[in-house]
Amino acid sequence: MSPERELAEPHLRQVLAMAGLDVEYTRAEGNLMYWTDGGGAEVPVLDFAGGYGSLMLGHNPPEIIDYTKELLERQVPIHAQFSRQPWANEVATALNRIIHRELGGDEPYYAIFANTGAEAIEAAVKHAEMDRGLRVAAALDAVARHVEEARAAVAAGTAALDAAAGGAATGGFEALADRVARENAERLGRPPLFLALEGGFHGKLLGSVQLTHNESYRLPFPELAARTRFVPLGEVAVLEKIVEEESGRLLDVEIVDGRVRLTERAFPVFCAFVLEPVQGEGGIRAVTREFAAEIQRVARAADFPVIVDEIQTGMGRSGAFFASSHIGLRGDYYALAKSLGGGIAKTSVMLVRQERYRPEFEVVHSSTFAKDGLSSRIALKVLELLEADNGRAYRTAAEVGARLRTVLEAVAAEFPGVVREVRGRGLMLGFEFFDQSDAESGVLRELSRQGFLGYGLAGYLLRRHRIRTFPTASAVNTLRFEPSILLDDTGIDRLGTALRDVCAVVRDQDEQRFTGANDHD
Amino acid sequence: MSPERELAEPHLRQVLAMAGLDVEYTRAEGNLMYWTDGGGAEVPVLDFAGGYGSLMLGHNPPEIIDYTKELLERQVPIHAQFSRQPWANEVATALNRIIHRELGGDEPYYAIFANTGAEAIEAAVKHAEMDRGLRVAAALDAVARHVEEARAAVAAGTAALDAAAGGAATGGFEALADRVARENAERLGRPPLFLALEGGFHGKLLGSVQLTHNESYRLPFPELAARTRFVPLGEVAVLEKIVEEESGRLLDVEIVDGRVRLTERAFPVFCAFVLEPVQGEGGIRAVTREFAAEIQRVARAADFPVIVDEIQTGMGRSGAFFASSHIGLRGDYYALAKSLGGGIAKTSVMLVRQERYRPEFEVVHSSTFAKDGLSSRIALKVLELLEADNGRAYRTAAEVGARLRTVLEAVAAEFPGVVREVRGRGLMLGFEFFDQSDAESGVLRELSRQGFLGYGLAGYLLRRHRIRTFPTASAVNTLRFEPSILLDDTGIDRLGTALRDVCAVVRDQDEQRFTGANDHD
Repeated sequence: MSPERELAEPHLRQVLAMAGLDVEYTRAEGNLMYWTDGGGAEVPVLDFAGGYGSLMLGHNPPEIIDYTKELLERQVPIHAQFSRQPWANEVATALNRIIHRELGGDEPYYAIFANTGAEAIEAAVKHAEMDRGLRVAAALDAVARHVEEARAAVAAGTAALDAAAGGAATGGFEALADRVARENAERLGRPPLFLALEGGFHGKLLGSVQLTHNESYRLPFPELAARTRFVPLGEVAVLEKIVEEESGRLLDVEIVDGRVRLTERAFPVFCAFVLEPVQGEGGIRAVTREFAAEIQRVARAADFPVIVDEIQTGMGRSGAFFASSHIGLRGDYYALAKSLGGGIAKTSVMLVRQERYRPEFEVVHSSTFAKDGLSSRIALKVLELLEADNGRAYRTAAEVGARLRTVLEAVAAEFPGVVREVRGRGLMLGFEFFDQSDAESGVLRELSRQGFLGYGLAGYLLRRHRIRTFPTASAVNTLRFEPSILLDDTGIDRLGTALRDVCAVVRDQDEQRFTGANDHD
Repeated sequence: MSPERELAEPHLRQVLAMAGLDVEYTRAEGNLMYWTDGGGAEVPVLDFAGGYGSLMLGHNPPEIIDYTKELLERQVPIHAQFSRQPWANEVATALNRIIHRELGGDEPYYAIFANTGAEAIEAAVKHAEMDRGLRVAAALDAVARHVEEARAAVAAGTAALDAAAGGAATGGFEALADRVARENAERLGRPPLFLALEGGFHGKLLGSVQLTHNESYRLPFPELAARTRFVPLGEVAVLEKIVEEESGRLLDVEIVDGRVRLTERAFPVFCAFVLEPVQGEGGIRAVTREFAAEIQRVARAADFPVIVDEIQTGMGRSGAFFASSHIGLRGDYYALAKSLGGGIAKTSVMLVRQERYRPEFEVVHSSTFAKDGLSSRIALKVLELLEADNGRAYRTAAEVGARLRTVLEAVAAEFPGVVREVRGRGLMLGFEFFDQSDAESGVLRELSRQGFLGYGLAGYLLRRHRIRTFPTASAVNTLRFEPSILLDDTGIDRLGTALRDVCAVVRDQDEQRFTGANDHD
């Protein structure tokens, strides 16, 4: 087999090559990545993709590099499963301190560690489903107890069947009890339902991909996971309608004024509502404070938990540690990953509030690599860096983000027919182009029709301007800007210049300039 | 909140404390882990748990430590998604070379990277399901083409409806076509089915946990994934029966001798058969060459792929790189993880043979952390170390494993009423105790009844002999021995002495000795 044969995703490489994105980076530091040109010289690229939100501290942050090297030199135990792992507890304690500061209250959140964002979501879903199962079991126990009490009361003559108990009443108490058992068994056959937002992205594993709205990721695999119903962003009426349509009830009996009668009690059908406070792959779209409050109201009323996916938004990118804190969204669960590993390690954590926590989950769920001594200690160092100096990192994210946004909005204002909208918060900004499916330029038109406009524009920015960005995965006309907190004004100005150029190319349908910039090899 | 409050799995910590396993390790090197005693001195523990199979090269292997530090110093780009990533291709190329050497043939296997073993399994399952969906679509296309051809032939008078086409024939061709469409739509409503082995373990994410046989891990979550049917190890008749029961057929039409008649064609119901060549968590139980051949025969006949889970067995632990190579088991898919990261990094890969490969999968599946520049390069270094000197590591695993096995078998022979069996291959050995649910000792009896005998014995070995091992997760009376290739004869002898002692404790039901060894704090 030829050593040049591509065996690791050859098709993807062709796609990247078509867009001019298939460069090989040889070094990375801060907001810069470098490729090496034919003469051996480094060519710097300004990175706004930021490892898909994993590089809040930049590429290879020196403090994390040094600390990682120190941990390796100290030979810290990395694989120490089933032993006392105090560093993991320190991470959990630090995250609790931040939750309480940003969202108020003092209810503890328990931490389950995983390795990736998708794994943290799946752990949260598993926990929510275990909790749902235990709540179903408790409801059935209560029904059984009520039936037993009613049977005893009827036998003792202290209660009689109510005529309103329905047709079953004609068969006496046992017919009623049979009906309760039979109908409840039938109702229990319903699978649980997930709720999520249109545009949401929560990973691509077998369970998490079904919570991810983008059909191209989700549709090949519907049979492999539970069903999700998607709510359009901001549309509480749709959420209420779904909850009304899907809500389940169990039959129960009660004794009122000496009469035994049928009644109903809630049956927990909804496993969880999963959402990002700012949708990352969905095109950098923020949930409003009002919508968050409505979701929490509906969730409380129907008694299902809210899983807040802070995998991309968290770790300070929004200008606070939790983007949900800007909108007062309190999660029953939080999922964190990406920047938690400092750009070096792979780690993630899901947090469950005490009120919902089921300790038995700890002996049901585990992972060989999770909670390891290297990535957990790195996560702790990352939290220290972010929290240092009273959260200077969060203030920096807010300030640099605001300056970046000002430039993006200025460019958008100069190209009103090209740029549709600038969206986002802090260092998580989206820059949406108008669709070019009917463009005069055949090249732009074809790219747009194939869903590759964003990749094409990203390729142009890379080749011509040495700027790295990508479209958001599920909103492909939106370019993402998620730099680290190290971005400076020079970088912001470079981006402004580059965006003005690419916008002019689109405005002028300048195919020659668009396709002529392939000079990076 | 008190800093001592346990927020990261407090329940698990209590369980560990009960067994005397909740020590804090402060350093690890080779086969040794250390805790620090009250006087600040290091207490060495000989590790046979081996990071649940992740430490083929031992804790903190110096070559991997040095190389990782070098990569960090060189500031290699770690998060370089959507760029050319030649190191990942080198890993894929190296793995292909090994597959072809150990299993013959030269068919390429394509590589999809992930971060953990469970993620690699889920990627394989997703790929298999995408492939199944495309095969279903192709079958439906063929049926539609046949219907169209038959319709044209009937219209042209070159074919007539066969009486044997059934009741539908009385309504003419369109009634027949309707029946085909209607019945096929109904048959398509069947969800896919997975096949796996009793005792198998393939991870604990939402999809993979349903492939994992242990009910305590799987049963809370049946509604969140597709259905799996489990085949007892070695029982090909059960496999054949399941395949017969579950096989699906699609209606089709054909023209034979001028007659249009109904026929049937296979409908791919089975997504995949997933198995480990040696079951790790299932108690170190090996698949035989004969059973492997039968599985492959049935899989070929019914046209479903075989996913070989080499997450724990692979990377040389068995005495060859792939444990499946000992039994001639050729996978359509392979999953590798654990030791692939050299005990430092988290990485995994799934490989798909070209015949089954669907390149479009590459744009459907992805992961932020996967294929990263750090863990992929470390994996490449691990492969270099394993392959060095014509695979000296594999020969060492075989030789050291044989010596270890000899000692385990000698102990078993000395304690025939205590030790049930020694099993395994290479550096993956299981040592099964007889159940103690009816033991004279109340302590051993209670431990056994709660499923904690193995943990209790592991705690004793740790406290009294400074030996670290655990039971296998789904066969809790079996202690696992999965040391690195660095294990020497002194270590093997130490283990022999310790096992003789613990076996004597069990034989003599010596509660006083068993519970009196808690001196490690």
